Amino acid sequence: MALTLYYHPYSRAAGTLWALEEAGVDCELRVTNIMKGEQKGAELIAKNPMGKLPTLVDGDVVVTEAAAIALYLADRYAPQLAPAVSDPARGTYLRWSFFAPSVIEPAVMAKMTDWPVKEVAAGWGTHAAMLAAAESAIAGRQYVLGDTFSMADVVFGGTLRFMLDFKQIEPAPVFTNYVDRLKQRPAYQRAEERNLAMRKQLGLQ
Amino acid sequence: MALTLYYHPYSRAAGTLWALEEAGVDCELRVTNIMKGEQKGAELIAKNPMGKLPTLVDGDVVVTEAAAIALYLADRYAPQLAPAVSDPARGTYLRWSFFAPSVIEPAVMAKMTDWPVKEVAAGWGTHAAMLAAAESAIAGRQYVLGDTFSMADVVFGGTLRFMLDFKQIEPAPVFTNYVDRLKQRPAYQRAEERNLAMRKQLGLQ
Repeated sequence: MALTLYYHPYSRAAGTLWALEEAGVDCELRVTNIMKGEQKGAELIAKNPMGKLPTLVDGDVVVTEAAAIALYLADRYAPQLAPAVSDPARGTYLRWSFFAPSVIEPAVMAKMTDWPVKEVAAGWGTHAAMLAAAESAIAGRQYVLGDTFSMADVVFGGTLRFMLDFKQIEPAPVFTNYVDRLKQRPAYQRAEERNLAMRKQLGLQ
Repeated sequence: MALTLYYHPYSRAAGTLWALEEAGVDCELRVTNIMKGEQKGAELIAKNPMGKLPTLVDGDVVVTEAAAIALYLADRYAPQLAPAVSDPARGTYLRWSFFAPSVIEPAVMAKMTDWPVKEVAAGWGTHAAMLAAAESAIAGRQYVLGDTFSMADVVFGGTLRFMLDFKQIEPAPVFTNYVDRLKQRPAYQRAEERNLAMRKQLGLQ
């Protein structure tokens, strides 16, 4: 196998397993124990100075940031999971793929920690606006692109899934219905089985 | 012109002008006066519930998030500014394009406002790690992809340019040399001339 994923089941790399399963890509998992700080070890820092998971190594290329990894896997190995670059739907696909890590994540974190940031200064705006925008992405649709599932759903939907599971956003039906739909996907279920098996193997539950 | 950009020269849409100039794409600018709160008006909110600039409308498609807009313009209109989807370099391109809004921006904002967030919880990590990772992207290289300029430089380099100009990161030579290189690009200079002209037209300086 040419691909290696620095992984721990309690990190965002758990979601990368879902992206890998959707893309049908084999990848060696390099378990990196974040409970012991192994993500700050020399091996990973040399590849990703953030010392963060997920980190994907594909031959000579290192890809970090969970959303970038997912879009890379689609572009390179599973083009059926992304609109062609010439397709206007590429704009929608990119929009919500960027929205998840750069708007949802900081907006939720800011709310949870009572962080007073000026809405006009922060790229991500208010929590209420974030929820309204996220709802507009999927209201009346099966997936971000309409009837077609894409890797943007792994990124955007996966972020909403996490926020719902950890009670970081309110379980509005527009979000729970969408996430329930995603959880029915065989690739999602295979990934969750693998994450669960890894948690057991690591004695985590 | 089929494309419309909701724009203000004091917003992140100023950087989108650079992306448009690099891509050679004509686009109508819809000036949206953020000093008067016009970005929260009904017209824009209907397209982007965040009420944020930049917002790009291209026919039936709305694209938001400055980085997503830049990558969309490259993919759809200027494929020479992005690695082909089958090219491993696509991973590097996506990595740093996502890094800018989802790591640099919140890490800088957190530092500026003394935001006490747990490093392991936040996707963006610490400010020091962010700087080390950003440096690794361009140390010993002309551009993110090596010798080849790409739209990832507009996103990643444009973010560093902003942080340097507003003294939000220290002016380490690895950053200033890279940004100086970008500022010499004719497309960057054309965009800055247009931003300056718009500021004058709006009586802003």
